[in-house]
Amino acid sequence: MQVYFDNSATTRCIPQVREVMDKIYDEDYGNPSSLHMMGVNAEKHVKQAREVLARILKVNEKEILFTSGGTESNNTAIIGCAMANKRSGNHIITSSIEHAAVLEPMKFLEEQGFRVTYLPVDEKGVVDLEALKEAVCEDTILVSVMCVNNEIGTIEPMEEISRIVKEKNSRAYFHVDAIQGFGKLLLYPKRMGIDMLSVSAHKINGPKGVGFLYINEKVKIKPLILGGGQQKGMRSGTDNVPGVAGLAKAAQIAYENFDEKQKYLYELRGRMLAGLSQFDGVRINGVTENGAGTMAAPHIISVSFPNVRSEVLLHALEEKGIYVSAGSACSSNKPSLSKTLLNIKAPKEVIESTVRMSFAVSNTDEEVDYCLTVLKDLIPMLQKYVRK
Amino acid sequence: MQVYFDNSATTRCIPQVREVMDKIYDEDYGNPSSLHMMGVNAEKHVKQAREVLARILKVNEKEILFTSGGTESNNTAIIGCAMANKRSGNHIITSSIEHAAVLEPMKFLEEQGFRVTYLPVDEKGVVDLEALKEAVCEDTILVSVMCVNNEIGTIEPMEEISRIVKEKNSRAYFHVDAIQGFGKLLLYPKRMGIDMLSVSAHKINGPKGVGFLYINEKVKIKPLILGGGQQKGMRSGTDNVPGVAGLAKAAQIAYENFDEKQKYLYELRGRMLAGLSQFDGVRINGVTENGAGTMAAPHIISVSFPNVRSEVLLHALEEKGIYVSAGSACSSNKPSLSKTLLNIKAPKEVIESTVRMSFAVSNTDEEVDYCLTVLKDLIPMLQKYVRK
Repeated sequence: MQVYFDNSATTRCIPQVREVMDKIYDEDYGNPSSLHMMGVNAEKHVKQAREVLARILKVNEKEILFTSGGTESNNTAIIGCAMANKRSGNHIITSSIEHAAVLEPMKFLEEQGFRVTYLPVDEKGVVDLEALKEAVCEDTILVSVMCVNNEIGTIEPMEEISRIVKEKNSRAYFHVDAIQGFGKLLLYPKRMGIDMLSVSAHKINGPKGVGFLYINEKVKIKPLILGGGQQKGMRSGTDNVPGVAGLAKAAQIAYENFDEKQKYLYELRGRMLAGLSQFDGVRINGVTENGAGTMAAPHIISVSFPNVRSEVLLHALEEKGIYVSAGSACSSNKPSLSKTLLNIKAPKEVIESTVRMSFAVSNTDEEVDYCLTVLKDLIPMLQKYVRK
Repeated sequence: MQVYFDNSATTRCIPQVREVMDKIYDEDYGNPSSLHMMGVNAEKHVKQAREVLARILKVNEKEILFTSGGTESNNTAIIGCAMANKRSGNHIITSSIEHAAVLEPMKFLEEQGFRVTYLPVDEKGVVDLEALKEAVCEDTILVSVMCVNNEIGTIEPMEEISRIVKEKNSRAYFHVDAIQGFGKLLLYPKRMGIDMLSVSAHKINGPKGVGFLYINEKVKIKPLILGGGQQKGMRSGTDNVPGVAGLAKAAQIAYENFDEKQKYLYELRGRMLAGLSQFDGVRINGVTENGAGTMAAPHIISVSFPNVRSEVLLHALEEKGIYVSAGSACSSNKPSLSKTLLNIKAPKEVIESTVRMSFAVSNTDEEVDYCLTVLKDLIPMLQKYVRK
């Protein structure tokens, strides 16, 4: 049995998405900037993709900026916004458990003279709203907090964050890295007070190398990539027509029968959590049950088994055809202790024994049960091995 | 008959390339940063793509940086290099006929306090080497000149440029925008004294949304897009595995039986030029015949018919199933007089009546002949219409 439980790292690009892309590769391969029919036909796909995404988020088409993926979306939002607003202030706020695609641009901005506040989080990974209240000042131009933490699945209180920020400084923009949240949660930036929102296609069964950034039309922002002036000058480069069409199709499918899909994912997660709770000394990082002000995303579980190192378990599971992640795949190039787990004050031995399981709607109860059965064999064996 | 003569705007992604991508989409959809087999298998494709491209250019694998396309490659080379070397000097040299993906980053750098020299070109579009000699100084950190002009097809004397630059300042880097040259010319950066070289996949029958930048390992450069630290920190974001594999396949095919393919393109171009020379008052912009220090790329023709406006001819040809470009597609978002044509001192009426035809090896003699036949009907009619 092959069980892919690493859907937060990347997903399979589904056949319906690839069909859309194939049709464009075959028939409408023109450059949207070309004036002839081949260009016009290609541009229609871009326009249509924009419409689909705008409808999902309930925003305007012109507020959708296509990028090469989530990382570029985050870089554009953060660096582009800081550069365009540096005369209004030099203070930026973010959380201490953001993805590297947010934290690294923040570091860059610190080198450029910006002051960045990193908000602490509680033991479930929820941003400290009191600290936020204290941090926002006249000088604050941007607040960037993720929608769903990529390692532990905690949902941040986006609406409260926006309310607090806007009450204290109505000119400060609020950016949300929604790379793990889009497609899994209902997101309405305008209603939720979100000015910019980053999305990646390959996390929602779309193609790799494409994403988008929602930018409220009132946001002052500069482009990151300069050239031919595509997308009204905000992102130059020939439009990735098959990519944006594939992204839109993937988003459309993710939000079709959304409640059903979300419920299904929560059920898979619940089934796995119930099974995991049978293990001695097991620890679930983040939120286990929704309510009382804390919410978990439907597709991520961060679990630690005592005395079993992450990589050892990862490879043992792999031998049984089960693919999970040690920490977050996105930063595995730089092996170091997880910032998220450090910040929720997980002890070092917990951090070193954490694996992430992340689900897609294509996963099944049988896969969860198989994984639990495998774990029941593996964990005692691996724990014994360590104790030797 | 459908005749696509706009291959410098973009090309069709060929079946062999899509097969490679499809296989990855089906089987190896993992994230190369994941530690399990799905990640390892995905990473193999990235490594293999790097090997293929390094072999073609005769460079080292680690000198290949994957990007989201030609525009990002140019932006990374120019902005990344300027930012990393600003302590060594603040002078940059480029030509006055570069693509916007080079000129716009240059404008940005001027705003940041860099001094940029724009070299003039002669009436064929060849960079003025005397002006270059005078311009290079102690303060010069970067020279960026394109390989093949995208509008008129002139090949710039890359080796002479490198020699002049390095003789006057051995620390200055030489970047080449090879987006129109790669796949059409043999390019060996190390032998030719090129330190950085930008390439786009969709110009060589590869997928849209992917490209690469060759960066000599000695070049001091900073990343443009920050995050998870992929590609040794030089370009964060989940690798576009199907994209880079498709790019490598397209490059491999472009350089298979290369001499034959290049000869074929030159023949197509020659056939078209011979036919065009029959028209009264026709003007070919750029180089018509190779030799005497001027060289034309094999796939681009820039032609002006007196008293026929570009857009009128473009749409008239379109009605006959022939797709050409008015100026360069990449900048059609901002209609204005072509910088290239202005700089080769083409009169305004010539500029306004210029169309570009650009070929791929899939084009045929029959298509050229069909286009010439159509033109024989159209041109007198359109000229008459204007004279009314």
